[in-house]
Amino acid sequence: MYEGIVQDLIDELGRLPGVGPKSAQRIAFHLLEADPADVRRLAETLVKLKDLVRFCTICGNVAEEDTCRICRDPRRDASLICVVEESKDVVAIERTKEFRGRYHVLGGAISPMNGVGPEQLRIRELMTRLADGTVAEVILATNPNLEGEATATYLTRFLGTMGLRVSRLASGLPVGGDLEYADEVTLGRAFEGRRVVHG
Amino acid sequence: MYEGIVQDLIDELGRLPGVGPKSAQRIAFHLLEADPADVRRLAETLVKLKDLVRFCTICGNVAEEDTCRICRDPRRDASLICVVEESKDVVAIERTKEFRGRYHVLGGAISPMNGVGPEQLRIRELMTRLADGTVAEVILATNPNLEGEATATYLTRFLGTMGLRVSRLASGLPVGGDLEYADEVTLGRAFEGRRVVHG
Repeated sequence: MYEGIVQDLIDELGRLPGVGPKSAQRIAFHLLEADPADVRRLAETLVKLKDLVRFCTICGNVAEEDTCRICRDPRRDASLICVVEESKDVVAIERTKEFRGRYHVLGGAISPMNGVGPEQLRIRELMTRLADGTVAEVILATNPNLEGEATATYLTRFLGTMGLRVSRLASGLPVGGDLEYADEVTLGRAFEGRRVVHG
Repeated sequence: MYEGIVQDLIDELGRLPGVGPKSAQRIAFHLLEADPADVRRLAETLVKLKDLVRFCTICGNVAEEDTCRICRDPRRDASLICVVEESKDVVAIERTKEFRGRYHVLGGAISPMNGVGPEQLRIRELMTRLADGTVAEVILATNPNLEGEATATYLTRFLGTMGLRVSRLASGLPVGGDLEYADEVTLGRAFEGRRVVHG
């Protein structure tokens, strides 16, 4: 045990996801020897995070105003909504620069194991957005795993009756990957989704 | 890229030792959803760390006053000094409850590769402590690696002329370990340091 504050910091850092007691100790000693201005800035950023960052009232993405940058941007195509599980998925898709529509962040995926049902997700908010008929297509971009697939299936059934196009991101071999190392489910999906390139 | 503050936090967390960009993102989102009181307490602890925690003027250990708890404790044997590289080594040794003397924290180990020479370590301060003749034995507890051994060798030569006992922690097989998996240097040390148990 260290004296008071150092131990307090180690305890608090140790509660962060992916930070074990050893790394908490390493980080604490790093901060102890770091430039005071840097540590103070980190402390201020933490306070600002809780004071200023909220979730977009339209799409649920992180935002520093009532709505996020993407929902405020008039150049984004309002007829396309891409449904994702988390804000970090928005960032991943934005990096591709392929998508010019808007997003809807569910805040997770259906997972009976973790007690997450459809009512815990921002599905009602999605329905509200679809009510005025502006949206022509909903792209389901939940994760290609058990929970993500369950969520996509649920949403497909739900949205299928609303007279709009519902699509799902393609599954297949990762670009730059090696066929040999692909798991059988991925390889199966790659066959299912094969595209004719000639004849 | 996230909006301002979230990205600022991810950048700052990513500069901590052992925190990559993915974990920085995970921690940032965890904090975004965490109880504001917890995040505020973490921020306050960081500020307190820089405002209140310093290094003991005697031994160099972390302290919240001019001297650390161990140097202030009159029950600790002042004739024994255990020399370690870092404050975290003090904690590790304190956990064993085997040692009732005092410590001296060098602040690192001699490492020409990293540009650390004896003059960067708290060796002068150690000499000052030894000057009044109270200390009878100095136990060298630097790490059993290249830098730690070099530092111990240097200190042994340095202290050897001062008429006090200098000892080094035993090297050997870790308790609970498996002989089969011991590296050859450790196994060699275990042979060298073998103790007669009969005859």
